[in-house]
Amino acid sequence: MVRDPISFKRIVLFARKHHAHRTVLSCMKKLVNHFNTLNIPILLEVTSSLHYKLNTPVVEQHELDKSTDILVVVGGDGSLLSAASLASEVGIRIIGINRGYLGFLTDMTPKTMLAELEDVLKGQFQEEQRHLLRVRLFDDKTMLMESRALNDLVLGRGESPYLVKFSVLIDNQFVSHYRADGLILSTPTGSTAYNLSAGGPILHPQLQAFAIVPMFSHSLNARPLVISNDSSVQIKISTENLAPLAIYLDGHQAHLAQSGQYLLVDKHPQLLHLLHPNNYLYYDTLRIKLGWGSKE
Amino acid sequence: MVRDPISFKRIVLFARKHHAHRTVLSCMKKLVNHFNTLNIPILLEVTSSLHYKLNTPVVEQHELDKSTDILVVVGGDGSLLSAASLASEVGIRIIGINRGYLGFLTDMTPKTMLAELEDVLKGQFQEEQRHLLRVRLFDDKTMLMESRALNDLVLGRGESPYLVKFSVLIDNQFVSHYRADGLILSTPTGSTAYNLSAGGPILHPQLQAFAIVPMFSHSLNARPLVISNDSSVQIKISTENLAPLAIYLDGHQAHLAQSGQYLLVDKHPQLLHLLHPNNYLYYDTLRIKLGWGSKE
Amino acid sequence: MVRDPISFKRIVLFARKHHAHRTVLSCMKKLVNHFNTLNIPILLEVTSSLHYKLNTPVVEQHELDKSTDILVVVGGDGSLLSAASLASEVGIRIIGINRGYLGFLTDMTPKTMLAELEDVLKGQFQEEQRHLLRVRLFDDKTMLMESRALNDLVLGRGESPYLVKFSVLIDNQFVSHYRADGLILSTPTGSTAYNLSAGGPILHPQLQAFAIVPMFSHSLNARPLVISNDSSVQIKISTENLAPLAIYLDGHQAHLAQSGQYLLVDKHPQLLHLLHPNNYLYYDTLRIKLGWGSKE
Amino acid sequence: MVRDPISFKRIVLFARKHHAHRTVLSCMKKLVNHFNTLNIPILLEVTSSLHYKLNTPVVEQHELDKSTDILVVVGGDGSLLSAASLASEVGIRIIGINRGYLGFLTDMTPKTMLAELEDVLKGQFQEEQRHLLRVRLFDDKTMLMESRALNDLVLGRGESPYLVKFSVLIDNQFVSHYRADGLILSTPTGSTAYNLSAGGPILHPQLQAFAIVPMFSHSLNARPLVISNDSSVQIKISTENLAPLAIYLDGHQAHLAQSGQYLLVDKHPQLLHLLHPNNYLYYDTLRIKLGWGSKE
Repeated sequence: MVRDPISFKRIVLFARKHHAHRTVLSCMKKLVNHFNTLNIPILLEVTSSLHYKLNTPVVEQHELDKSTDILVVVGGDGSLLSAASLASEVGIRIIGINRGYLGFLTDMTPKTMLAELEDVLKGQFQEEQRHLLRVRLFDDKTMLMESRALNDLVLGRGESPYLVKFSVLIDNQFVSHYRADGLILSTPTGSTAYNLSAGGPILHPQLQAFAIVPMFSHSLNARPLVISNDSSVQIKISTENLAPLAIYLDGHQAHLAQSGQYLLVDKHPQLLHLLHPNNYLYYDTLRIKLGWGSKE
Repeated sequence: MVRDPISFKRIVLFARKHHAHRTVLSCMKKLVNHFNTLNIPILLEVTSSLHYKLNTPVVEQHELDKSTDILVVVGGDGSLLSAASLASEVGIRIIGINRGYLGFLTDMTPKTMLAELEDVLKGQFQEEQRHLLRVRLFDDKTMLMESRALNDLVLGRGESPYLVKFSVLIDNQFVSHYRADGLILSTPTGSTAYNLSAGGPILHPQLQAFAIVPMFSHSLNARPLVISNDSSVQIKISTENLAPLAIYLDGHQAHLAQSGQYLLVDKHPQLLHLLHPNNYLYYDTLRIKLGWGSKE
Repeated sequence: MVRDPISFKRIVLFARKHHAHRTVLSCMKKLVNHFNTLNIPILLEVTSSLHYKLNTPVVEQHELDKSTDILVVVGGDGSLLSAASLASEVGIRIIGINRGYLGFLTDMTPKTMLAELEDVLKGQFQEEQRHLLRVRLFDDKTMLMESRALNDLVLGRGESPYLVKFSVLIDNQFVSHYRADGLILSTPTGSTAYNLSAGGPILHPQLQAFAIVPMFSHSLNARPLVISNDSSVQIKISTENLAPLAIYLDGHQAHLAQSGQYLLVDKHPQLLHLLHPNNYLYYDTLRIKLGWGSKE
Repeated sequence: MVRDPISFKRIVLFARKHHAHRTVLSCMKKLVNHFNTLNIPILLEVTSSLHYKLNTPVVEQHELDKSTDILVVVGGDGSLLSAASLASEVGIRIIGINRGYLGFLTDMTPKTMLAELEDVLKGQFQEEQRHLLRVRLFDDKTMLMESRALNDLVLGRGESPYLVKFSVLIDNQFVSHYRADGLILSTPTGSTAYNLSAGGPILHPQLQAFAIVPMFSHSLNARPLVISNDSSVQIKISTENLAPLAIYLDGHQAHLAQSGQYLLVDKHPQLLHLLHPNNYLYYDTLRIKLGWGSKE
């Protein structure tokens, strides 16, 4: 669709910190050269730490302008996950360039990125709001941690060889007690990641939902549960656990959860404004990425 | 919650046609006696065909008054499924009495029904809207069937011993081609029924969603998919099928689908207004019915 | 391995009855021409019904000589399944040519078949014994059906829209009662077919085992069970079923099973002597067919 | 069955080291008193470390006589797992008393143990051989670890938040490369433990087999595989792993596996001689433990 001309005035590049991948660097150089030639300001987000190789001005988080800047992530879905925190905090629009293989979040390839990005700058794009999880850890009433995740919260065994024990409440209603390897709480965005390997369902990105999936539950009748993302999920770490549990956000260990502590998870108030080229079709990405049948 | 006094003026009983179960009949007699004594009109919905045993006036569909009548189903979840079509067409509120075992839809037991139903008549109840599927079958552009289902649409092999072939489109976007035993398209209400046996996720009743689950897909990477119930699902029966496929709605065979025909499934415009006693808790029902752990 | 010269004296071709596939016919013509030129007798198994197109002498079952004939199936795994009954009855060695796509049972492709088959005739092959199921249906003590299957027995709903009910006993020990869509009882050979779609495990072909997999069991804790193929499995059709169940052997409907009847399934005394080219590797076939990862 | 009188001359009690459970201690005291009265020697295996509370002579491993001693484990399946190493090394017969709840390995309850154990001493028992895994870890050609497990080997992430990478070879044939949370290699005895939570099949205890189950594989078409226990399984830890993987044997962390190392797993030459009371029925235990349906 062609929109009211959104006057993107600056491109801000983002790559994963210390990202050594050659394709990423050569992509970024190509982008810098191209948009320098077009006299469109192109800068590097400061944490990406590649400025010494790119010869580009850097920009810090507080200097970003959500109405006229676009954050262009280079490097695949993992890199976009890393940028999601910053992008949702600032409210800046984000789009992704992969390393040659289609991503769930990064639609543009190095081959087609220049023309596609020019179209995007002209206002020719699809925009969707993706929800993040807000994850808070409490000890009694003291908040010990507050963070966010675009894909998922995984509560895992940590270093314990034993099953872990926890209870789940949704909107203050007791759901169940579990003995399991852990629990995955996933957004629609994360539903095609770890959640899918664990037997969870695919959630359409625009479904206002979370998926809750117990991991290798001792009880054979545990099943994935999908709830509204207006709900608040409380996970109480049983006092019977002998060792702390590990909390992973988007695959990175964020904290330990001790016996007796509890997690509160809900929809983060700050959204991710994810852009796609105009020819983006969700179900095409899904079918291609999962190897689903395309013909009779 | 106590509401604005909803002035239920009449109780309309419903039982499955020719339902021979003794508990059902004795329940209904108890209800008739009790509310006759209280001078609250109690009638029998005409298709229930038990009036010769109940000595109660019967009422036909067009005589129902959705603002002052309440439809009381006796007999378990299967009976409530049978009444859902009538209730959603008329727009009448519905509540269920089981045969002694907690149901997902029928919360009241024969033991507690009299007091609980009196409370409901006084306006002390929980009310929720449950969506039904609207299922239409087309041959080219001619509509061959239009029907509704509270739980699910199952597209199955019919009498064919072979895998069936079909394609799924959502909102006119091609999703995938399947070779499988069939497909289950379920509402949240149906998510704890056949969908669950087939590996589909549990959807909270208030989630605005459908689950789509291929049955025993030949392709090992087929997975359950959950989409918004604002979406429209098209299922195209491949012309390569040698025999017609069977369409089941809420477990009853509704029609045959020939090669080349297609189904259109979306949210039915008419809702089911399902009531529960005030002490109803969804997750308690879920945990009890599925045998989930209640203590550490 | 090079064996004691097995003096295969005749090639007997087999194709599925009325098999119209072009590749199959052209393959068979190529085989006939090639081995006619080499003066190696090549005949057509009579039920294949293609002699009018092949100009080849036909041979009937009783004329087959298991010590000097080799049965060459053309057409893929389904065709080899069709030939398995005959081959195991006669005790003749069997080998398969596919239609260009690797099969689990048919290893040779049209491109390489001539050289590979010459090697096989010279005694350069791998030979393995595959067990078949012996399936018998009883009414009280009267045997109503006796048949065999190389892949699987499927007990299914037949035309009933309802769950079916049956009990399983193994070696006369009661295992469980089931309410389900049906049951799959699979050999190792069949474990990569329907069993796999239904969540059953892959059994190595030389494992002396059967897999028993309930289909969409109402009970969520039903699980696949693998037992010794020295065991005898009894499946009792509950008298509560309202309609007959359908018995499928290797995907073909073989019989109806009425309420109160029972099936006895064990290892058939007659084996299938399946040959492979010398370069055959089971795990390569498995990995390629299932799309498993071949590199880091 | 009544056997040739096996002249068990001594009972050797075993409990998990430092096992504080009250039922266990009271059970053991009851056993000691009972068999003291009968003048049947009853001793305590030395590592059980409860002699100060039991007033019973202790016996060390080298003093055990496999032909006339019986090892009686008190405390449930976990305790029997702990005793399996000792019992299989010595070759002594083993039997288990649970803490009131039926176990897969511990059939006798505190209530019935005295009479049942007397019968066993008289030679009235069922005996079965259970295979253990032999697990060896190699660095190039140096063996770093050799151990055994009755239930399972689990190769897990260790402390790494990332998927781990490894390849599996069976009998020196390459099977597949995996990116996953890990791998479970289970005996029939272990098939109802962690393997079952992870989607693996139940293997009958007398099936000569192992189950190999990838955990949360990134690839959606990974499936459980069952092979003969005459096979040798090699698991190569990919050099791409950034952190060591953890090796768990019967749920206890045994070692770390570094990138480039490999595991060799096969059937241990020493068996476990497991006894059951004469009325033991495997499928009854299975049905009761898993909550399978017992009636129509």
